[in-house]
Amino acid sequence: MDKPLTPTLDRVAGPADLKGLSQGELTQLAKDVRHEVISSVSQTGGHLGSSLGVVELTVALHAVFNTPFDKLVWDVSHQCYPHKILTGRRDRMHTLRQGGGLAGFCKRTESEHDAFGAGHSSTSISAALGFAMGRDMGQPTGDAIAVIGDGSISAGMAYEALNHAGHLGKRMFVILNDNEMSIAPPVGAMSKYLSGLYAGTPLGKLKDMAEDFESALPGPIREGARRARQLVTGFPGGGTLFEELGFDYIGPIDGHDMGQLLTVLRAARARASGPVLIHVCTVKGKGYKPAETAADKYHGVSKFDVSSGAQKKSKGNAPSYTSVFGKTLVEEAARDSRIVAITAAMPSGTGLDMMQDRFPRRVFDVGIAEQHAVTFAGGMAAAGLRPFCAIYSTFLQRGYDQIVHDVALQGLPVRFAIDRAGLVGADGSTHAGAFDVAFLSNLPGMVVMAAGDEAELKDMVATAAAFDEGPIAFRYPRGEGVGAELPERGRLLEIGKGRVIREGSQLALLTLGPALGDALKAAEELEARGISVTVADARFAKPMDTDLIGQLVDNHAAVVTVEHGAEGGFGALVLHWLARTGRLDRGCAIRTMTLPDTFIEQASPAEMYAEAKLTARDIADTALTALGVAPGHFAKPA
Amino acid sequence: MDKPLTPTLDRVAGPADLKGLSQGELTQLAKDVRHEVISSVSQTGGHLGSSLGVVELTVALHAVFNTPFDKLVWDVSHQCYPHKILTGRRDRMHTLRQGGGLAGFCKRTESEHDAFGAGHSSTSISAALGFAMGRDMGQPTGDAIAVIGDGSISAGMAYEALNHAGHLGKRMFVILNDNEMSIAPPVGAMSKYLSGLYAGTPLGKLKDMAEDFESALPGPIREGARRARQLVTGFPGGGTLFEELGFDYIGPIDGHDMGQLLTVLRAARARASGPVLIHVCTVKGKGYKPAETAADKYHGVSKFDVSSGAQKKSKGNAPSYTSVFGKTLVEEAARDSRIVAITAAMPSGTGLDMMQDRFPRRVFDVGIAEQHAVTFAGGMAAAGLRPFCAIYSTFLQRGYDQIVHDVALQGLPVRFAIDRAGLVGADGSTHAGAFDVAFLSNLPGMVVMAAGDEAELKDMVATAAAFDEGPIAFRYPRGEGVGAELPERGRLLEIGKGRVIREGSQLALLTLGPALGDALKAAEELEARGISVTVADARFAKPMDTDLIGQLVDNHAAVVTVEHGAEGGFGALVLHWLARTGRLDRGCAIRTMTLPDTFIEQASPAEMYAEAKLTARDIADTALTALGVAPGHFAKPA
Repeated sequence: MDKPLTPTLDRVAGPADLKGLSQGELTQLAKDVRHEVISSVSQTGGHLGSSLGVVELTVALHAVFNTPFDKLVWDVSHQCYPHKILTGRRDRMHTLRQGGGLAGFCKRTESEHDAFGAGHSSTSISAALGFAMGRDMGQPTGDAIAVIGDGSISAGMAYEALNHAGHLGKRMFVILNDNEMSIAPPVGAMSKYLSGLYAGTPLGKLKDMAEDFESALPGPIREGARRARQLVTGFPGGGTLFEELGFDYIGPIDGHDMGQLLTVLRAARARASGPVLIHVCTVKGKGYKPAETAADKYHGVSKFDVSSGAQKKSKGNAPSYTSVFGKTLVEEAARDSRIVAITAAMPSGTGLDMMQDRFPRRVFDVGIAEQHAVTFAGGMAAAGLRPFCAIYSTFLQRGYDQIVHDVALQGLPVRFAIDRAGLVGADGSTHAGAFDVAFLSNLPGMVVMAAGDEAELKDMVATAAAFDEGPIAFRYPRGEGVGAELPERGRLLEIGKGRVIREGSQLALLTLGPALGDALKAAEELEARGISVTVADARFAKPMDTDLIGQLVDNHAAVVTVEHGAEGGFGALVLHWLARTGRLDRGCAIRTMTLPDTFIEQASPAEMYAEAKLTARDIADTALTALGVAPGHFAKPA
Repeated sequence: MDKPLTPTLDRVAGPADLKGLSQGELTQLAKDVRHEVISSVSQTGGHLGSSLGVVELTVALHAVFNTPFDKLVWDVSHQCYPHKILTGRRDRMHTLRQGGGLAGFCKRTESEHDAFGAGHSSTSISAALGFAMGRDMGQPTGDAIAVIGDGSISAGMAYEALNHAGHLGKRMFVILNDNEMSIAPPVGAMSKYLSGLYAGTPLGKLKDMAEDFESALPGPIREGARRARQLVTGFPGGGTLFEELGFDYIGPIDGHDMGQLLTVLRAARARASGPVLIHVCTVKGKGYKPAETAADKYHGVSKFDVSSGAQKKSKGNAPSYTSVFGKTLVEEAARDSRIVAITAAMPSGTGLDMMQDRFPRRVFDVGIAEQHAVTFAGGMAAAGLRPFCAIYSTFLQRGYDQIVHDVALQGLPVRFAIDRAGLVGADGSTHAGAFDVAFLSNLPGMVVMAAGDEAELKDMVATAAAFDEGPIAFRYPRGEGVGAELPERGRLLEIGKGRVIREGSQLALLTLGPALGDALKAAEELEARGISVTVADARFAKPMDTDLIGQLVDNHAAVVTVEHGAEGGFGALVLHWLARTGRLDRGCAIRTMTLPDTFIEQASPAEMYAEAKLTARDIADTALTALGVAPGHFAKPA
C-alpha cells in the first residue's frame, strides 16, 4: 500500500514546530500523525489502538507544553507512537520494537523528550510529582504532566500518588485518558465511577478558573471559548472523587476535539496553582475502523494489511504455552469446583479467557492490581478454595511483598501461574521475566517449578491443582511450545524431583525450564566431539532434587546449570547446596549459566538469548571450558 | 504494681462467653480487657496504643460475630492484644513477643481465631474479600470482617481491594478504625478527607437500613436505638468516597461507645447484602493517659511502669544505627541542598525526624505507600535532586517492582537507606529484613552496600549522597552499633571495594554487614586453635570486589562468606562469579553462610541469630569443617 500524504507532518521536525500552527493546522497535523501511525505499525506491529486514541491529545500537549523542559510522562507508554513521531523519531518508526531500533515504550536513553520510561502501568503520577517537586526545589525543569489511562489509574500505586499529590498541593497535571478500555474492558468500582462521570450531565470545573476565563485565552482559539466556558463551570452539589483527593477536576472533554483540548490545556497551563486532573475521553483505535471496532484485539498487533486490517499470522507449529495453560486449567476446573483463577486485567494474555467462557463466576479479573490479586488469592486459599493466580513474571514483581508476607509466610496454597518468564522479545527489557525464580526460590516453603516444554506445563498445572501443602509456582515462556506431545491429562509430578533426559558420563547439563531444548542441542554437538553428555531437567528450582544433583556432581567431570533467569535463582541455590554439603570440593567443575547482569533491549527472543549468551552454542562452549579446567576427569572414559 | 481486678473478664474463656452478656456487662468487660492489656504490656512491651484504641470494638465484634466461623481479619494486627485476650490466649499474654511465646501479631498457626496473619499493613480487605468469595462458593465459612486503620487504608493495596470489593458487590464488612494516627500522624489527601467526614455535620447512612430499623434491634440495646436511628439516616446530596467505590457507608460512630458499636454491628450483620464500610472513630491509647497524650511514642513501647508510664530504657552503650543514619543525613543535607528524603509513614523509625526538624520541606512522608515512595524518588532523581528513600528492609518489598522498573532499569540515582536489615527481634518473621540483598543485588546497575558497623554506615551515607551514576542502596541492622568511633564526617568509599580487617593465611572469612563482628570473634577463637585467619569486610554485595575475592580464594585453603540475609544474595553472587571464572575448581573450599530456609519466629535478635546458626561459634564451626575437607591446604604454614 502507498504511503499516505502527510503534508503538515512533513513540516514538523520537533515539538517547537507546533507552536506556530493554528488550530486548523494542528487538526490537520493530527490527521497526518494518525496516518503515519497506521502506516508505520502495519509494517512493524505494535500497540496500535492505544496510540491511535491519543493522537489529538499528543498533538495538543506538544502544542501547549514545551518538552523537554516540561516533563511529559506517559503511563505504560505503549501509547507513545504519536509522541515519538513528533519528537524527532519519525524516520526510525520502521525500526519500532526491533533489535537495535526504537523501543515500543518511552525511554530516557532514547530521547530527551522521554522524561520517564515505562512499560508497567500506573507509575506516571508518582514520577510527575517527583518532577514537580524538583522544579519547586530549584531544578531546571518546567511543568510536569502525567498521561494515564482509566485502566492504569485503578492500580493502587496511582491512588497512592494522587493521594500524595493532593496532599502536597503543588502545581502538576494529570491527564486521565479515559477510553473505558485498558487491554481488556476495565473492571472495578472505579471504572464504573468514571463511566458515571462520563454519562452524567454536568461537565466539570476547574476551580478559580471560571471567572474572566475568556480573557486568558489566546487569540486563535476564540471558536473554542464558548465551549470552554461551559467546561469550566462548576457543577452543583459535591465534587468528584478526584476533588475529594485534593485535585482540581476538569472534564470530561472530548479527546478528539482539538479545540476543546487546546482550550482546556492552555487554560490549565495558564492558571493552575495546584494539582489538576483533566479528564479526557478518547476512543481506543480512533480513526481506524478495524481497531475501533475490536479494540481488545488491536491492543497489540502484529504486522497487518492497512486496507483490510488483516493481521499477519505467525506460523503456529505448536500450541502456545499460554493456550496449553488455559486449556489445562479448564480441564482441571471441570473436575474440581474449588479451582478458581485470578488475573490482573489480562484474561486473554494469560489464557484465562478460556476459563471465563466456561466458568465465568470462577475467574476474577481484579484490574491492574497485582498486590490485591495475590492477597485476595491468599484469602481464597485460606477459605479452602484452590486459587490459580495467573500473572506474567514481570508484573508479579508488583505483588512481591504479598507473596512473601501473605502467602509464603502463612504457607497458603496459592498456585502462581507465571507466563512470559524469561526474555519476551519485542516488549523488551521492561517486560523481561528475569527475576521470578530468584525472588521466589529463597522464600521458605515455596515450591517453584519451570516447564521444560508444553507437556511438562500441562503436568505442572495438574500438579499445582492437587497440591494443598503450601504455595506453588510454575513458570513458562512466552510463545509456542516445542511440539511435545501433550498427555491426555496432566500427570502429577513428584514434588522436588527432576528427570534425566539422556544419560552420559563426562558432562552433565542440568536445566530449568525451556533451556532444556538448547541443552539437548548442545549435547548433540558435544557428543559429535566425542564427549558423553547427561542432560537432566530439574523441573523444580525448589525444593531441589538433591539426589539428582548429588549424583550428577559425583559422576561427572563437569556440571553446567542453565536457566532463563537472573543470577540468584536456580543455579545459585544449587551452588549454595553444593557449598554447604562440601560437594564443591570434590573436583567436579561447576558452571551456572543465567541471564547476564544487564537489561537486554528488545529484539526477537532468539536474538535476545544470543545476546544473553544462552544459546545451544554458548552452552556447549561453557561445557568445553568447564571440562578443560578439570582435565583429569575429562580423560575419564565415556 | 498489683494486678487489677477483672471480674467480668475472668468469666470469659472464649468468644462464645460474650454472647450472653448484656451491653452493660460488655462495657464492663471492655474495662477489664483494657486493664489487662495495660498490665500485660507493661510487663512485656508491645503495641500498646493501637490495642487500647480497639478494646470496645474488639469486644463488640466478638459479641456480634462468631469466630472462627466468621473470619475476623485485623489489618497489620498490632492492635490484636484484646482479641488475643478474648480468644483463649489470656494466660499466655506474659509471653508476648518473646521467644517461644505469643506473637505480637495475628498468626494462623497460633489460633483458629486468627483468620489471616499480618504484620505489614493494608492486606486485610483483600484477605477478607477472599474469605467472602470462599463462602459464596460453598466453603464452610461465615462472614468476613476486615478491621483496618485510617493509615493503612491510604495504601494503594487497600484501595485496590476496596475497588474490587465494590465491583463484586458481595456481602462483607470493612471496619475503618479511624484514630487519625497510624504510627506518625497520617498524611495524604485521604487522611484530610476522613477528617472532613468526622468533622462534617451529617452522620452516615447504611442503605436500605433506614426503614424499620428499630424493629431489627435486639432487646438489650434499646438505649442505643435512637442514636442508631440517627446514624442510619442518609445525608443529603452525594455519597462518600466509599459509596462511590460501591460500598454502603455507615458512620462515623464512636468506637468507645459500646451501645453504638453493638447497635451498628448487629444491624449491619442482620441486614447487609453487599459490601459495607463502617467508619469507627477511636482514640489511640484510649483509657491510659500516658498513651493517649503521646500516641506516637506509645505505638510500640518497651516495658513500662503502669502508674507513671515511664518506659524502661535500654542500656544504650552505642548510638543506634538509625540515629547514626539520621544525624549523618542531616549533616550531608546541610552541605547539599539537592538532598531530599522520603519516608513511608515512618519518620521517627527511620531517623528522618531529625531531618524533618532541620529541613522540614525536604522530607516527604508519603504515608503507607512504598510503591509511590520509590517511583516518586525516581522522579525526583530524574529531576536532578538527590533523594534518599528510607524504608525498612521488610517494607521495601512493597516497592520491589518500582525499584526494578522505575529506578534500576532507568539507572536513576535513588539512594535506598534500608534500616532493620536482617533479623529484628520481637516483631518476628513478618518484619525480618531477610531478602533485600537477594532482590536488589541481581538488578543490573544497582550498587548494594551493607554496613559492618556504625562508622561504616556513616561512610555509606556520604558515599551514597555523592554517587550520581545510578541507584545505590545501603542496609544496616536494627538496634545499637558496636561502639565504633564515628568519623567527623562520612568518608567516600571506593565503589565496589571491600577492606581487609585482619590478615591471615589459611582461612578467610568474608562478611557482608554486621556479621563482621561475629567473624572477628570467630577468628579469635580459630587463632587460639592455631589457625591463621583473614577477615575481610566486603562492604559491597554489588559490585563485588572481585580482586579481593580472587585473592582470598587464591591464597587460602577455605573461604567462608557470612551475611545476615537469605540465600541468593551476596554469597550466591560470590559463588556465581567463582563458578564463571573457574575459581571454584582451584581447590579452595568455599562455604556460604546465610539465613536458613525457614521463617524465624520472634525472640531476641541474639536468639534468632543463634537459631539461624549465624553466631561466631557457628562461623568457627563452618570454617573448621571447610578446612577439614581440604586437608592438603590446611597443612600449609601460617
